[in-house]
Amino acid sequence: MKPIDLGFTTLEWVDGGLRLLDQTLLPEVEEYVDLHTIAEVVDAMKRLVVRGAPALGCAAAYAMVLELPITDDAEIWLTQLKKNARELETARPTAVNLGVGVRLQLQMGHGLMASGQGDPVTWTEQLVQIAQAFHFADQESCVALSEHAQGLLFDGVSVLTHCNAGALATGGIGTALGPLHLAHSRGVRLKVYADETRPLRQGTRLTAWELARHGIAVDVLPDSAAASLLASGKIDLVFVGADRIAANGDVANKLGTYPLAVLAQRHGIPFYVLAPGNTIDPTCLDGAQIPIEQRSDEELYDADPQPKGVGVFNPAFDVTPAELVSGIITEQGLFQPHGAHQSLWLEYVESLNA
Amino acid sequence: MKPIDLGFTTLEWVDGGLRLLDQTLLPEVEEYVDLHTIAEVVDAMKRLVVRGAPALGCAAAYAMVLELPITDDAEIWLTQLKKNARELETARPTAVNLGVGVRLQLQMGHGLMASGQGDPVTWTEQLVQIAQAFHFADQESCVALSEHAQGLLFDGVSVLTHCNAGALATGGIGTALGPLHLAHSRGVRLKVYADETRPLRQGTRLTAWELARHGIAVDVLPDSAAASLLASGKIDLVFVGADRIAANGDVANKLGTYPLAVLAQRHGIPFYVLAPGNTIDPTCLDGAQIPIEQRSDEELYDADPQPKGVGVFNPAFDVTPAELVSGIITEQGLFQPHGAHQSLWLEYVESLNA
Repeated sequence: MKPIDLGFTTLEWVDGGLRLLDQTLLPEVEEYVDLHTIAEVVDAMKRLVVRGAPALGCAAAYAMVLELPITDDAEIWLTQLKKNARELETARPTAVNLGVGVRLQLQMGHGLMASGQGDPVTWTEQLVQIAQAFHFADQESCVALSEHAQGLLFDGVSVLTHCNAGALATGGIGTALGPLHLAHSRGVRLKVYADETRPLRQGTRLTAWELARHGIAVDVLPDSAAASLLASGKIDLVFVGADRIAANGDVANKLGTYPLAVLAQRHGIPFYVLAPGNTIDPTCLDGAQIPIEQRSDEELYDADPQPKGVGVFNPAFDVTPAELVSGIITEQGLFQPHGAHQSLWLEYVESLNA
Repeated sequence: MKPIDLGFTTLEWVDGGLRLLDQTLLPEVEEYVDLHTIAEVVDAMKRLVVRGAPALGCAAAYAMVLELPITDDAEIWLTQLKKNARELETARPTAVNLGVGVRLQLQMGHGLMASGQGDPVTWTEQLVQIAQAFHFADQESCVALSEHAQGLLFDGVSVLTHCNAGALATGGIGTALGPLHLAHSRGVRLKVYADETRPLRQGTRLTAWELARHGIAVDVLPDSAAASLLASGKIDLVFVGADRIAANGDVANKLGTYPLAVLAQRHGIPFYVLAPGNTIDPTCLDGAQIPIEQRSDEELYDADPQPKGVGVFNPAFDVTPAELVSGIITEQGLFQPHGAHQSLWLEYVESLNA
């Protein structure tokens, strides 16, 4: 099912359990864990063993099948399915895709029961297949948007990225990193620069590991060094992911994306956002409507004790206005929410409303 | 000698030794060390027990007096003074002010000998007084530039700063933080936001501690959150220090200063550089001529192991073009290297050449 061998597998269904690459141990140790209970999966999600909105969605869809009883009693089976849903949904309240995977399986469970065909044992098997289809759809989406981005990647291209929007964050080859994996597998020479992404260091921990694991040349940098790097003329393109995209094309993504967009514009370097279409929220009119989660003091004071009487400003995300975005690339193609081709973007968003 | 009681003393001469606040233990422990040998001082400088260009200069001037022999033999005395100079100068090769303090004392030692008056014991006493005068001059310089900045600070003002250009980095109340200490001591209410300043975290470790210790309200933030903060409208001014200022007004300062200047301009927020006049290098025509030190991989990978095959881009400084600087404030006043009053700046730089 996987179109490119990256040398690792973020998540898969193996022998009736959910196998995850334990991201808390990266980059030091590459270890897989097999989970067979909901409690184990919820714990893994909370501890960020698995993370990234699309990956959480796939993991949740698989996890819904765990602990379903081998029984003739449809009600007992459905009761457990509902219990699974309640417990999984609380694991990461802000990850929208997690809820999508859960609700899909709940809906399918009800549907299988209502069909009057089969029994709980066959329904469980069918839910596994649905989870795999959901996972496969995410893989397809990553590949499709990566294909749409290939035209931007010439031999010898140098790309700056932020946070981790790679295979580790999705069920497939990634969003911002997907096109790079695809191009590399086709022999295109490329160099990636990855921001550290404080405070959780997804860049130095995950993106650097993921790219190096696949044999892609990568340098990491402090977030504040991106400005010097863009000024140096060494960067051809900036690729980032997205957590939510408003109807007008404003993009919420990991803290640090907005300054990168401002600096890219100053230095005349194209700035692209890569995300599956379901990241677009047609009901959200602009970036000002996107709620921004504030994170804990502990994230910033992970290395040193916090001085007495010192406050912390630590938002998880920031909002990049559409005017700074050269293009948004989804599985449907490249759209420009700002400028001459804005109408195609508005048409696309309108179609999502339907 | 100290015009404002900040509640701590970065460095002072006590009982024939150099007393330093150990900055490696901050913010957890506030502990002073008394050093009586050159080897101890060199070690303290290397380990960043004391840091910041002006503070290093003062510490070096005092340290030059250590280990001078009680003797009648002028040559023996001078030999030790020269030995001190050689050892101190190697402690931190990039700190220009360190060399200024060392060379001043070497020159004075030669002068005292050549005067034909007194003996090595009185010369040693005179070098202590010269070190104190050098230290006092730095204190005066901090106060003078802080006074020149008072007109910018209204009651309730909110200031964003980067790295540590405070009392911990100088012999006085600081450069970028000096005006804030001065205003606070006069009852002006103010709020400071301090960037973390990766990779060495001078913001969360030192600036936050220093301001809170003096009773100034301070919030810290990841470097990449400065963009969101500036966009939020909560910031009135940006104050930063400088490591070297070119003749055209381009400013080299701690990595992360340049993106802050770009973002301040985007949001229409004044951006000021505060530094003693000896930070200006009239022989350096523009920022492109300022060499930028590359730091080690270990600084960025302090928390996690470095993945195999991953490179690091970690410059210590960046260059902010003069056009982004609203004003440069030295002990001589506020200068505008760009815009209508540029001629006064050029006149000032010319006077430094004389």
